[in-house]
Amino acid sequence: MVAAAMAAGCVIGVDLGGTKLLAGAVDERLQVHHRAYRLARTDDTTAVLETILDAVLEAREAVGGDVRAVGLGIPCLIAPETGVAMRCNHLPLVDVPVRDIVADRLGLPVAVDNDANAAMLAEWRHGAARGASDAVLLTLGTGIGGGLVVGGRLVRGARGGAAELGHMVIAAGGLPCPGNCEGRGCLEAYVSGMALGREGLRVAREAPDSALGRALAAGREITGALVTELTHDGDTVAGEVMGHMGERLGIGITTLVNVFDPEVVVVGGGVIAAGELLLGPAREVVARHALRPARDHVRIVPARFGAESGMLGAAVLALELVG
Amino acid sequence: MVAAAMAAGCVIGVDLGGTKLLAGAVDERLQVHHRAYRLARTDDTTAVLETILDAVLEAREAVGGDVRAVGLGIPCLIAPETGVAMRCNHLPLVDVPVRDIVADRLGLPVAVDNDANAAMLAEWRHGAARGASDAVLLTLGTGIGGGLVVGGRLVRGARGGAAELGHMVIAAGGLPCPGNCEGRGCLEAYVSGMALGREGLRVAREAPDSALGRALAAGREITGALVTELTHDGDTVAGEVMGHMGERLGIGITTLVNVFDPEVVVVGGGVIAAGELLLGPAREVVARHALRPARDHVRIVPARFGAESGMLGAAVLALELVG
Repeated sequence: MVAAAMAAGCVIGVDLGGTKLLAGAVDERLQVHHRAYRLARTDDTTAVLETILDAVLEAREAVGGDVRAVGLGIPCLIAPETGVAMRCNHLPLVDVPVRDIVADRLGLPVAVDNDANAAMLAEWRHGAARGASDAVLLTLGTGIGGGLVVGGRLVRGARGGAAELGHMVIAAGGLPCPGNCEGRGCLEAYVSGMALGREGLRVAREAPDSALGRALAAGREITGALVTELTHDGDTVAGEVMGHMGERLGIGITTLVNVFDPEVVVVGGGVIAAGELLLGPAREVVARHALRPARDHVRIVPARFGAESGMLGAAVLALELVG
Repeated sequence: MVAAAMAAGCVIGVDLGGTKLLAGAVDERLQVHHRAYRLARTDDTTAVLETILDAVLEAREAVGGDVRAVGLGIPCLIAPETGVAMRCNHLPLVDVPVRDIVADRLGLPVAVDNDANAAMLAEWRHGAARGASDAVLLTLGTGIGGGLVVGGRLVRGARGGAAELGHMVIAAGGLPCPGNCEGRGCLEAYVSGMALGREGLRVAREAPDSALGRALAAGREITGALVTELTHDGDTVAGEVMGHMGERLGIGITTLVNVFDPEVVVVGGGVIAAGELLLGPAREVVARHALRPARDHVRIVPARFGAESGMLGAAVLALELVG
């Protein structure tokens, strides 16, 4: 009973990824009272929607049923006015009126936005970019998610397609983009969990005596997460791969600093677990190569909410909807 | 008398470049009633300010003295609230309260902004970006000037340093930036009058039988303007240099489309005299490499006001100041 009383007036934030889903019952102070985890089923639209609903119902029940609204952060291009998912790289949500479907089924107000926008919102309202009028978010997961605040407002672009920061071209004629993109030399090809795994595999072959090389010989898959782990463990070769990725990150941030003159650049996503081993080299590149005075003022910092920024941002969407 | 009557209520817009100055007496319909040209004197601060005042006085006298306000577009970092020029790459205007000095001397309201912001304002209010909520301007002169409109507002950044679009990094580890910048691989190193002259000289040496090669043999300086002229005249080699620069421009615009999802990208400055010979290859790169749906909707168009967009934008600043 106490838990339910404490949770009165909660909202539910849902972060839907390409492979998994996190729903949280969250109060106005952004305290999380319950977390519901699901695998995101990717086979058909109905299954995805049922997974969302199922997780929301679990979270609602856990806080005694008293929920004011639901926020959804989904990895799709969203029509801001209607909450329709127009395009989606990883899930079967194309031309699906997600907002209205979920609202009808739950009988609750529902807000929908892109997952990276939601993460930016969480960091901007309550996290590492709090109080900034101009801020940039890069979430480094398998790929890159981006969020932008310009002049005190979230940037969505003319058709909701803005802030695709992983698709800034940093190497003309470079690597084909691994994302759902026909570009070459995109930041995402050099700075992401995927890129970290690729480079980790390359050096594992070149340096069989390194921890990475031994992991490869032992039959382990060389992933970005493994490179991050071995960097933490002090493996020099893994650390060099991470440091080089930090420099490439710094090149991307240099462009962002020159274009936006932001107060703060927030870096989140799984790869930020490497912390200063990633951010240190990035900061050095920006300090040398970006324009003054922007480079002298900008802060480059890790995200506050880590892997939960998307879920918390979705909760903020819901709070602001009924707020 | 008729001219003076027609010009009642004019403002004066001033575009101050690194080497020359244009002041225009402009009415609310953006008709120009008088143009005053000066060389911008770069030796000391007082001389620059006197040149501005002198040109404004000529324009004011030419329209019978009835002038409501003055707008200044200057190639400096401007403090938006105070009109102080904080940094300036080409002129001795550092920590100079330009707005207040000019206003005191003239007894008129004065608005000051960066010259590229002024050009963006002219194109946005009255030119090629009219009606757009999200627009980008690239002016290709000796270097690159940039302007941004996001969500219906001009973007200045946290400290006035935003929209340095010439300093997006398109080639990590590439050419040292020729601008007043310590970066490498900046767009400006590949797409500008300066880059065009450099590439023109390179191919003139490689192809002595081309028009460019003959110009070099005849002792002409190989400038961006000459390459543009020979491209127009049908010289294949010059056309290839221009086409390659158009492709590099397309790479920069690809980043801008992916970051901003704009309705329109406006390209101005002296190099746009090459027209479709520059924009055609740029559009092809964007159509292949940028993300959908942004690439399918964005228009890539020449500036409407050409070399006068800075002056007209400064006039718009003045018009908006007095309302």
